[in-house]
Amino acid sequence: MVIQLYDLAGVDENRRFSPYCWRIRMALVHKELQVQTIPWRFTDKAAIAFSGQGAVPVLVDGDLTVVDSWRIANYLEDQYPDRAPLFGCEAARHHALFIKLWVERVLNPLALRMVALDIFKHLHEKDRAYFRETREKRFGMSLEAYVSNREQARDGFREALAPLRAFLGEQPFLGGLKPLFADYLVFGTFQWMRCVSDFQVLAKDDPVYAWRARLLDLYGGLARAAVGYPV
Amino acid sequence: MVIQLYDLAGVDENRRFSPYCWRIRMALVHKELQVQTIPWRFTDKAAIAFSGQGAVPVLVDGDLTVVDSWRIANYLEDQYPDRAPLFGCEAARHHALFIKLWVERVLNPLALRMVALDIFKHLHEKDRAYFRETREKRFGMSLEAYVSNREQARDGFREALAPLRAFLGEQPFLGGLKPLFADYLVFGTFQWMRCVSDFQVLAKDDPVYAWRARLLDLYGGLARAAVGYPV
Repeated sequence: MVIQLYDLAGVDENRRFSPYCWRIRMALVHKELQVQTIPWRFTDKAAIAFSGQGAVPVLVDGDLTVVDSWRIANYLEDQYPDRAPLFGCEAARHHALFIKLWVERVLNPLALRMVALDIFKHLHEKDRAYFRETREKRFGMSLEAYVSNREQARDGFREALAPLRAFLGEQPFLGGLKPLFADYLVFGTFQWMRCVSDFQVLAKDDPVYAWRARLLDLYGGLARAAVGYPV
Repeated sequence: MVIQLYDLAGVDENRRFSPYCWRIRMALVHKELQVQTIPWRFTDKAAIAFSGQGAVPVLVDGDLTVVDSWRIANYLEDQYPDRAPLFGCEAARHHALFIKLWVERVLNPLALRMVALDIFKHLHEKDRAYFRETREKRFGMSLEAYVSNREQARDGFREALAPLRAFLGEQPFLGGLKPLFADYLVFGTFQWMRCVSDFQVLAKDDPVYAWRARLLDLYGGLARAAVGYPV
């Protein structure tokens, strides 16, 4: 039975913009595993109640349900060890966890400062009040105020990319000559932004721009073909 | 013949404070390799001219000379593959390079904002003019001005540690249950600071504080026994 993935969607059910779901989309194709994605909206809590929580990605593989992008990646690695590795070894898995936390603690907050309102604009009608209310409570201000200085957020975002930019002077992917899950961890954030926003977060001469282009082109251009804005 | 390491020293030749040399001290003891350290000052360029450049660490292993902390770690890993691994696999090595660059691009500039003047105060007389001149040119201001708001730098430093702090909620070391070179990459920066400064950069209830204590205690307390200030 084909793997199923509950995948965050916008008003257009083909607009899939979750950074965490994109990590798993990339991990699945990396392992050459077929997947059926199921469009899901923030307020479709009942549809994933069987998973014991209320967020995507939710992966269903036969009788097994796995939630949380990090746990899903680890599940796929351990369940399908004969497919291309997502990590490489235990040490690499630990280091990838550090990279995950760098993405989530450093990059994602700056990304939200740029695209939070663009996310809202692409949501299904039924999700809008929920999203605005929960995010405005978290941010302590309106969505509009939160993104009101996104040029400054972009400066901070580009500066925060310094370690990745320096790395790309040495290797084409965080995995070395080939991408690994560490690449998808970072790429999810870029794909999230481009799927909802035409705001150009990277300069064209940035090595990170070229790296993102390599990720967009992987696997027959899976991520580039997704509904979103050109970059 | 025992490995030799040219190691940055202060006016007290037993005060060894280079973050890059500390990475290698830890890597050598990790691999249970004996080392003879040779105290070296910034202006002792002639003493390491044989290495083709002017900075430490410089490692001499028999007929071979290796410079640069990253290259030395890679050399040790490849030359002594039967000893405890510093990386674990190629993927982990690439990810560790990312962590190295995070340390150097994010943490070290903030560390210098806290301890640049303390470094100067511990230098050998013959190094002081050199250090002041090169650093003040790089910083675009006096050493005194550069560290004049080190409480603010400490706030930034603590905030920049967010990914490591979150990681330490999951695992005791960046290597998992045991330290790897990734841990020494970060630890070098902390050891650098404590060897020249009594400025307390971490709160005692910070998980990073506990991680640093674990590193200080490794290998019979090698790093804790080093000449420096208590933390």
